[in-house]
Amino acid sequence: MTPSTSTFTTRLSDAARVVEASLEALLSDNAAPGELARPPRLMAAMRHAVLGGGKRLRPFLTVEAARLLGAEGKGPLRAGCAVELLHCYSLVHDDLPSMDDDDLRRGRPTVHKAYDEATAILVGDALQTLAFEVLADPATASDPAIRSDLVLGLARASGLGGMVGGQLLDLSAEGRYGPVTMGETDVRLLQMMKTGAILAFSVEAGAIMGQADPASRRKLVAYGHALGAAFQVADDILDREASAEALGKRTGKDQEKGKATLVDLLGMDGARRECRQLVEQADSALDGFGPQAQVLREAVRFVVERQV
Amino acid sequence: MTPSTSTFTTRLSDAARVVEASLEALLSDNAAPGELARPPRLMAAMRHAVLGGGKRLRPFLTVEAARLLGAEGKGPLRAGCAVELLHCYSLVHDDLPSMDDDDLRRGRPTVHKAYDEATAILVGDALQTLAFEVLADPATASDPAIRSDLVLGLARASGLGGMVGGQLLDLSAEGRYGPVTMGETDVRLLQMMKTGAILAFSVEAGAIMGQADPASRRKLVAYGHALGAAFQVADDILDREASAEALGKRTGKDQEKGKATLVDLLGMDGARRECRQLVEQADSALDGFGPQAQVLREAVRFVVERQV
Repeated sequence: MTPSTSTFTTRLSDAARVVEASLEALLSDNAAPGELARPPRLMAAMRHAVLGGGKRLRPFLTVEAARLLGAEGKGPLRAGCAVELLHCYSLVHDDLPSMDDDDLRRGRPTVHKAYDEATAILVGDALQTLAFEVLADPATASDPAIRSDLVLGLARASGLGGMVGGQLLDLSAEGRYGPVTMGETDVRLLQMMKTGAILAFSVEAGAIMGQADPASRRKLVAYGHALGAAFQVADDILDREASAEALGKRTGKDQEKGKATLVDLLGMDGARRECRQLVEQADSALDGFGPQAQVLREAVRFVVERQV
Repeated sequence: MTPSTSTFTTRLSDAARVVEASLEALLSDNAAPGELARPPRLMAAMRHAVLGGGKRLRPFLTVEAARLLGAEGKGPLRAGCAVELLHCYSLVHDDLPSMDDDDLRRGRPTVHKAYDEATAILVGDALQTLAFEVLADPATASDPAIRSDLVLGLARASGLGGMVGGQLLDLSAEGRYGPVTMGETDVRLLQMMKTGAILAFSVEAGAIMGQADPASRRKLVAYGHALGAAFQVADDILDREASAEALGKRTGKDQEKGKATLVDLLGMDGARRECRQLVEQADSALDGFGPQAQVLREAVRFVVERQV
C-alpha cells in the first residue's frame, strides 16, 4: 500500500463514519414533520438494510466533488446520504428471491432473510422515497432550484431509463425472458444503466451542491461516467477472480447464470487494459481543477484496485 | 342518479381521458433527456400497470383543487399524473405474492401474473421514481420552489411515515408478525397512513400548483384528509357488502384475514354515520371558496357513494 493509498483509505473511512452517523439520524424511529408515524418493524429493517457496513463510496464522491467547488457541511453530506439510501434500496430489491435470490450481503443476512419478503419489498420502497424526501428537504439546500435539480438528476439516473431499467436488462441477460445474445454495446449499456448512472450522479450531485458552472459540471459528470464504467469492469474482473470468503457474497454468479460480462467479451487482459484507459479518462476530466482534485483521482484508482 | 351526480361523473370521466393520454405520453418507449434507454419489456409492463382503467380520482382532485385557485393546464395535470403513478406503483407492489397475493386488478391480471414477479417489483420501483421525475421536471412548474414542494409533500405522504408505513401496519394487522389487537386509534392511523395521506396530498398538490396562501392550503388539506378518511370508511363498508363480480377483485379480504376494520369497530350504522360526518367536515373545509368548490363537494360524495 503506497502512502497515498493509505491516506486515501483513511479519508474514505473517516468519511464513512460521518455518513453512517447521518444515515442513522435519518433512520430514527421519530417521525419527521409531515409524517404520521414510523412503524418500528419497518424502521428496524431499514436500519438493517442501510447501517453497519459499506464503503459509502457514493456519498464520499458527492461530498468530495462538492468540496472541490467550495461547498462543505451538512448539505453535501445529506445529498450524498440520499444517493446512498437509493443505492441501499436497490440492493435490498436485487437480493429478493425473485431477483438475484441472495441470502448474504456484506456477510450478513439479506433483509428478506433477516425479516421477510414483504418487509424487504417495503424497506426498498421506503428507502427510495426517503432518498427523494432528503433531497427535497430545505435542510439539504436552501435554494429550491438546487433541491429540484438533485431530485430530477437522481430520478433520471435511477429509474426506468437508468438503474431500474438496467436491472431489467440484467434479468433479461440471464435468458429469463427468452434467449438473448449480448454484444459489447448491450453489455456496456446494461452496466451504464445498472451501476454507472448512479455512480456518475453521485459526482454530479456534488457539482449541483457546489453550484458548478456548466463546463465544470460537464467535466465532473465525465469523470463520474469514467469512474462508473471502471467500477463495473473491475467488478467483472473481481467476480471472476475473488473467492466467496473474501467478498462475503456469492461470486462467479454471472458465469453461473450464463451472463456475458466485459471479461468474456474483452478477455482478462482487455478488461484490465480498459480499466487503465478509464482511469486516464477520469484523470483528464479533472484537468483544470488543480491539486484539490487529487482525492478524486485516487478514488477512481481505489475503485479499480479495491479488494473488498 | 341526480342530475348533479350525472354532471359530476361526466366531468370525472372526461378528466380521466385527459389523464390517460398524459400518462400514456409519460410511459412511451422513447427515453427522456438524461435517461439512457427504456427497455421495451419494462415499459410494456409499466403501461399494463397504469393504463386502461381506474377512475383517476387522485389526478382529478389535483386538477380541480388547482383550478379552484386559478391554475390550469399542463402543470396541474402533470402533478396529478405523478400522484397517479405513485398510486399505481403501490397497487403493483401490494398485489405481489408476498403481500396481498392478488391475481386480478380492475378485472385484469395483475402485473406479476401478466409478466413475472421480478418485473412487477421493478415496475413498481420505476413508477415510484417516475412520479418524482415528473414532479421535479421544469415542465410541471417553472418555479423550482413549487417543484421541490411537490416532491417533499409526495415523499412524506408516501414513504415510511405515510403509505409504505401504512402497508407495513396493514401486514402486521393480519397477525403475520405476531398477535395484534387493533383498537380504533390503530385502525385510524393505519388507514390515514395507507390511503388517506396520498388522497390528502392529491388535493394539496393542487394547492401547491395554485400557489395557495397558507390559510387556503390548510383548508384544502383539511378537505383532503376528510375525503381520504371517508374513502377508507366507504371502502370498509364496500368490502363487507359488495360482491366479487361487481368489484372485479376479491372481497371480504379483510374479514378473511382477521383484520379489524372500522365496520367491526363502529358497526355498519356507525360507519355510515362517520361517512356522513366526514362529508360535512369536507364541506365546511371548503367554506369561503365559493360556488367553484362545488365540484370538490361532489367529489367527496362520489367517494362515499361510489359503486365501482
